Amino acid sequence: MNSYLVGVDLGGTFIKTALITLSGEIIRKLEIPSDTGKGPDGVIENICRSIDTIVDQCGLTMDAVEAIGIGSPGPLDTRKGIVWNAVNLPGWINIPLRDRIRERFQIHTILENDANAAAFGEYWRGAGRGSALMLAYTLGTGVGGGIIIDGKLIRGSTDGAGELGHITILPEGDLCSCGNRGCLEAYASATSLVRRTRQKLNRGAVSILSKWMEEGRSLTAKLIDEAHLSNDSFAREALEEVGYFLGLGISGVVSALNPDTVVLGGGMMGAGEVILEPLRREVKRRVFPQHFNHLKIAAAMLGNDAGVIGAAGLVLERRGLPL
Amino acid sequence: MNSYLVGVDLGGTFIKTALITLSGEIIRKLEIPSDTGKGPDGVIENICRSIDTIVDQCGLTMDAVEAIGIGSPGPLDTRKGIVWNAVNLPGWINIPLRDRIRERFQIHTILENDANAAAFGEYWRGAGRGSALMLAYTLGTGVGGGIIIDGKLIRGSTDGAGELGHITILPEGDLCSCGNRGCLEAYASATSLVRRTRQKLNRGAVSILSKWMEEGRSLTAKLIDEAHLSNDSFAREALEEVGYFLGLGISGVVSALNPDTVVLGGGMMGAGEVILEPLRREVKRRVFPQHFNHLKIAAAMLGNDAGVIGAAGLVLERRGLPL
Repeated sequence: MNSYLVGVDLGGTFIKTALITLSGEIIRKLEIPSDTGKGPDGVIENICRSIDTIVDQCGLTMDAVEAIGIGSPGPLDTRKGIVWNAVNLPGWINIPLRDRIRERFQIHTILENDANAAAFGEYWRGAGRGSALMLAYTLGTGVGGGIIIDGKLIRGSTDGAGELGHITILPEGDLCSCGNRGCLEAYASATSLVRRTRQKLNRGAVSILSKWMEEGRSLTAKLIDEAHLSNDSFAREALEEVGYFLGLGISGVVSALNPDTVVLGGGMMGAGEVILEPLRREVKRRVFPQHFNHLKIAAAMLGNDAGVIGAAGLVLERRGLPL
Repeated sequence: MNSYLVGVDLGGTFIKTALITLSGEIIRKLEIPSDTGKGPDGVIENICRSIDTIVDQCGLTMDAVEAIGIGSPGPLDTRKGIVWNAVNLPGWINIPLRDRIRERFQIHTILENDANAAAFGEYWRGAGRGSALMLAYTLGTGVGGGIIIDGKLIRGSTDGAGELGHITILPEGDLCSCGNRGCLEAYASATSLVRRTRQKLNRGAVSILSKWMEEGRSLTAKLIDEAHLSNDSFAREALEEVGYFLGLGISGVVSALNPDTVVLGGGMMGAGEVILEPLRREVKRRVFPQHFNHLKIAAAMLGNDAGVIGAAGLVLERRGLPL
């Protein structure tokens, strides 16, 4: 087997690419704009140029690369390597992304869901190392997820497993971007935190955030955390509420699967314990002691690298190799 | 390998035992009272006598039996073969059930959770045959569950996976027997259907059920179905509501795991489509089309035999044999 893997994390804004060892260490990484306006052909060309660039910058040729793993927004077909339709990538309908990359480099290539790849990255090299059964959540614009059992990614019967953000937590709750009411994503994404916080401020909630917004600062999850760190109790409660909602959504999956590890990542997890503490309390309240007593609930460790590391790691996972 | 397996389904009321072929056909079965008042020793003696009896009745000796699979109420430890604590079995605390049976018969023996065994039975020989990713629900006194992925039972990190009845569907809902509020079990077990129906009748709901109860008949799930079949619209709505609640609970697990098959068993499923139709509608409403379009939601096929068949089948599953 050759010494390196390439991991690609295709997003609506950036393409992240990394050269990675077989044990999951990043040798070199690169982030370039996806340039989605150029359509699928342009984006695929950007991916290929990215791969050429990092291999070249490392003084290597593609002969040193064993395989390429690509994480892409879905829905997609991991067996056929086709992206059915990616909301954040205009014009991407039934694009055979895997084969386009494979043909260009003449190298074994795999396609995976981006959230699942990030989950696998945390399992392989991050906060989920050594877990027998792990759930991963990424809290960003949406809420992504992934499930790893005995070292295998759970892909589901139509490559749709791990949609942990679209589990209903309140049957007649807020409308989610997916069209359903009361999804976890409608309560625990950074986007929904900002939306709900803005609503409360408009209704007269007292917070330093109002002053900061008058001063021209944008309301973001990060700003809410900043207010919390300035002892703003409204901001603290808003973050605690996210923890409560996450706990509600996570508890159901814990009852179903009895994981030993739950990893939470994404920018919002910078807030840390103010979210994790009410989250753990809510999970504890709702599951059996057997489910909670040995459960680790922790912040992710790999940040934005989880996706490229996981996409590369899934090459080994598919071959059934020990990680 | 010898030609037969023995499956045991230990319950709070009955011990069911069956001699089963390696392809999952029942040759002979026996049901005797568990006699839990006699404590663990007495119940274990009853299990052993049951096994002796069916083997003998088939004109065989234990030499023809490859292994014994036991399904028991939990929590339990499938690796150590110990029942930690079984609510329906008085005095069962840390009972090494597997080794007690193994020592008696000098035969390979395994211990599994009873609901998981029933789920595996439906996968092996029932409504879940050929499924790549299956959820099973048993609606009885409680709501049990099980998850089978690629032919493997998901046991979880502490043998607690498959508690699909204890997923919260209404955060501040009815109190469940487990102590949590709003569990699916508090809305979709036969017990909770009867409790909720009785409450509504007491509050003045109009139904033939009131007349029947005045005539001395007991309110049961079966009686409610009988009223529904007599065109009682109150009874129909009560059953439809169970379907709605089930759909709510199932939809979350569908988003998480993307199964191709959901199987529902237990006495209440005799009501059939009046539950399944609103159930499917609710799942469809809450999950992605990718999750729903190829999803089969069907009634279980094995009835009370699922537990013994599944317990025996898990002997083969643990050995990684094709089923």
